[in-house]
Amino acid sequence: MLLNEERLRRQMADRGLDAVIATTPENVTYSSGFWALPQWIRRGPQAYVLWPAAGRGEAAVITSSGTLDLLADQVPWVETVRRYGAFHVDRGPVPELDPVSARLAALQALPDDGDALDSLVAALTAAGLSRGRIGIDEQGLAPGHLERLRERLPKIAWTQAGALFRSVRAVKTPEEVDRLRKVAAITERSIAAALAMAREGASELELARAFHRQTVEEDGLPVLGCIGFGERSALMNVQPSERRLRAGEVIRFDAGGRYRHYRADVARIAVLGEPEPAVRRYHSALLAGVRRACEMIRPGVTAAAVFETTVETVRREGIPHYHRNHVGHGIGLDGYDAPSLSPGSSEVIEEGMVLCVETPYYEIGRWGLQVEDMLVVRADGVERFMATDGDLMVVAP
Amino acid sequence: MLLNEERLRRQMADRGLDAVIATTPENVTYSSGFWALPQWIRRGPQAYVLWPAAGRGEAAVITSSGTLDLLADQVPWVETVRRYGAFHVDRGPVPELDPVSARLAALQALPDDGDALDSLVAALTAAGLSRGRIGIDEQGLAPGHLERLRERLPKIAWTQAGALFRSVRAVKTPEEVDRLRKVAAITERSIAAALAMAREGASELELARAFHRQTVEEDGLPVLGCIGFGERSALMNVQPSERRLRAGEVIRFDAGGRYRHYRADVARIAVLGEPEPAVRRYHSALLAGVRRACEMIRPGVTAAAVFETTVETVRREGIPHYHRNHVGHGIGLDGYDAPSLSPGSSEVIEEGMVLCVETPYYEIGRWGLQVEDMLVVRADGVERFMATDGDLMVVAP
Repeated sequence: MLLNEERLRRQMADRGLDAVIATTPENVTYSSGFWALPQWIRRGPQAYVLWPAAGRGEAAVITSSGTLDLLADQVPWVETVRRYGAFHVDRGPVPELDPVSARLAALQALPDDGDALDSLVAALTAAGLSRGRIGIDEQGLAPGHLERLRERLPKIAWTQAGALFRSVRAVKTPEEVDRLRKVAAITERSIAAALAMAREGASELELARAFHRQTVEEDGLPVLGCIGFGERSALMNVQPSERRLRAGEVIRFDAGGRYRHYRADVARIAVLGEPEPAVRRYHSALLAGVRRACEMIRPGVTAAAVFETTVETVRREGIPHYHRNHVGHGIGLDGYDAPSLSPGSSEVIEEGMVLCVETPYYEIGRWGLQVEDMLVVRADGVERFMATDGDLMVVAP
Repeated sequence: MLLNEERLRRQMADRGLDAVIATTPENVTYSSGFWALPQWIRRGPQAYVLWPAAGRGEAAVITSSGTLDLLADQVPWVETVRRYGAFHVDRGPVPELDPVSARLAALQALPDDGDALDSLVAALTAAGLSRGRIGIDEQGLAPGHLERLRERLPKIAWTQAGALFRSVRAVKTPEEVDRLRKVAAITERSIAAALAMAREGASELELARAFHRQTVEEDGLPVLGCIGFGERSALMNVQPSERRLRAGEVIRFDAGGRYRHYRADVARIAVLGEPEPAVRRYHSALLAGVRRACEMIRPGVTAAAVFETTVETVRREGIPHYHRNHVGHGIGLDGYDAPSLSPGSSEVIEEGMVLCVETPYYEIGRWGLQVEDMLVVRADGVERFMATDGDLMVVAP
C-alpha cells in the first residue's frame, strides 16, 4: 500500500479531525491507490477520497463516471465508490464478463450523483459526516468549491489539510520505497544512455532523446530532463537545445521521470575529455558535501543541521563562497515532498523518509555543477538508491 | 506568437476589463510565451502574466527567481519581468557573457519582490492598476491568494477570467496550428511504430513502449497513451498492461503527447488478422460519423449541430443505439480546449479553431472502437492534420 495509514490516523487524531478529504492527484492516488488519469494530465477534473477517522466508517473514492474503468482495472484498496456525471458505455453480448469488465459494469450501475460537489456532499452525508471537524486538501479543489461546501454543510468546521497530507507522505511505505528505488535506477541508466551519445558535435537534444528513450524503455514517463553543455550547464532548469558539445565541456544532468507515478530527481556531471582543474576541484567539494550529508542523515537529526553541515563541508572542501537555499528535499508522488533540507526548516529526519540530497553550484556564463543522490532513511543511517558514486564522469572524446 | 492578441484585446474590451492576469501554466505560456517548468510539472509553484488593456502599459511576467534562466533562454514576447524569492547563482569569471547568460545576469539583478503575491501586487501597483476591473484566471492561483489580493488591493473589482482565456485560446494562431499539426503527425507515426510490434503474444506494454519511443525520438513528451487489446479496448482510459494480443483482436489507440507544449489526441483502431464482421460494420459507422463532421464543420456552424449530425450519421450507418455526450473538443495547450462538440453547447465554430472530432464506442467485455482526427477550421471547411484516413487497419498476423 502507498498510504502510511497509521501515520495518517495518528495525525488526524492529533488534530481532532473526524475526516480528511484528498483532492490533488497526488493525495488521491496516495490515500486510495486510485490513479485518475484526467486529474493527472489536466487541471480541473475533480476526484476525491474521503477518509473518516477510525470507527467512523469506510473510506470512499468520489470520481467522474468516465474514469470508472481505471478503478475497475487498478483495484485500489479503497473499495467504496461514488460516481458523478454521465458517461455512456454499452454492454457487449458476452455471456460471462472477465473480472475487470465485471467490476466496470458494477461501477457503471452505481447511481449518478450529479456533479463532483454533489457527490462529495452525498458521500459526507451518507457517512454521517455532515457535522464535525473535517480537513480538506485545499490545493486540488476547484475554485469556489470550498465556499459552496460551507453553504451546503454549514455544521462542518472545515480546516485545510494540504500540510497534513504532505507530512503524512513524508515517511514512505515499503511499496513507495520500492518504486522510488526503481525510478532512481531508471534515471541513472537513462543518464548512462545519454552519455553513450556524448561526443564532439552531439547536441543537447540528442542526449535528451537518448535519456528519455531509456526511461520509456523501462516503463517510465519523462518529466524532468535538464541537460546542458558548457555555459548552458549553468542554467538551472536548462532545456535541451541544438547546442553542440565541444571538447573539455561540462555536461550537467538534473533529471528524472516517473515510474508507477513516483518521481526521480538525480544530478550527475560529466566532461567530454579532460576537465579543467576548477571543475575537478569544485565538483569534488560538492560531492564531499553530499557524502557528508549521507553520513550524518539518520532519524532524529534536524533538516536544518543537515543543511548547515553540508554547506560548511562544501565551503571547507573547495568552494569557500558556497551559498544555497536548500541542499535537498523529500521525493515521492511529488518532486518536492517534505522535508526541506533548508536553514529555516523545523523538520526532523525520520526513518522511512526518501530524500534527494543535492549540492548544485552555478557560475553564470561558465558552467554549472551538481551532485544529487536519492536515498531512504533507515534506523541507523541511509540506504542510497544510487549505482554510481557521484564522481565526475570523464567521457572519452 | 502563441497568443491571439487581437482576440484577447477584444474580449477584454467587451467585458470592460482594465487588465487580465494569467495564473495557470497553460495561460502563462499562452499569453507570454514563457514556459515555467515548475508550474508545469508540479501543483503549487506560482507564475503569472499581467496583461493590461490597450494603452494601460506593458504586459509583465511575474515569476520565481529560480526560473529566470528559462526566461533568459526562451526570450518570450513579454519583456517586462518581476521576480520573487531567493535563488543563488554566482557570476563566472567570464569577460564577456554569451547572450543567454547576459540576459540571466540582468534578470538576476532585478529586485526581489518577496513572495509571489507581493510581486503580483507590486506589478499591479507599478502599472497604475491598483483600482479598476481586473479579470484573474482563478484556476492557477494558490488557495487563499484571491482573498489576500482583495484585502491588499481593495479598490479593484475582481472577476474570474478562466472562461475568457479559454475562449481566447479557442482560435489558434498560425504558430499554434503548426505545433498542433506537428504533434498530430508525431502521434500517427507513434501509432505506426506501435503497430509494427503487433503480433500474436505481444503485450500492450510492448506497443506502448514503441509508441512513446517514437514520440520522444521526435522531441515529443508522452502524455496520453491508452492502448488496449480485445476486451480491454472497451476500457475508455485503458492503461497498457501485460495483456497479450491474440489473433482477431481489436487494438484501440487513444493517445498523444506534447510537442513544444501542444497536445495531441488521436484515436485509431487496428485488428490482428481478420476482423469480425461486427467490428468492420461498427467501425465503418463511426468513421462515417467523423467524415460527416469533417464535411460540415466550417465557420458559423454550431457545435451542437455538429454533434447532432455526427451522432445521427453513426446511427444511420450501422449503430442504431449509438449514444454520446460529445463528439469532440478543441485542443491546444490543454487536451480539452473550447469548443465542446456537445448537445448542450452554445458555441459556434470559428475559423482557426483546432478540433479533435471523435466517435468512440465501448461495449464492456467485448471491445471498444474509436476514430479521432485532429483538424483546423479554415474559411471554407477543414484542413485535416492526419496522414491516415481513419480506416480500420488490418495487421498481418
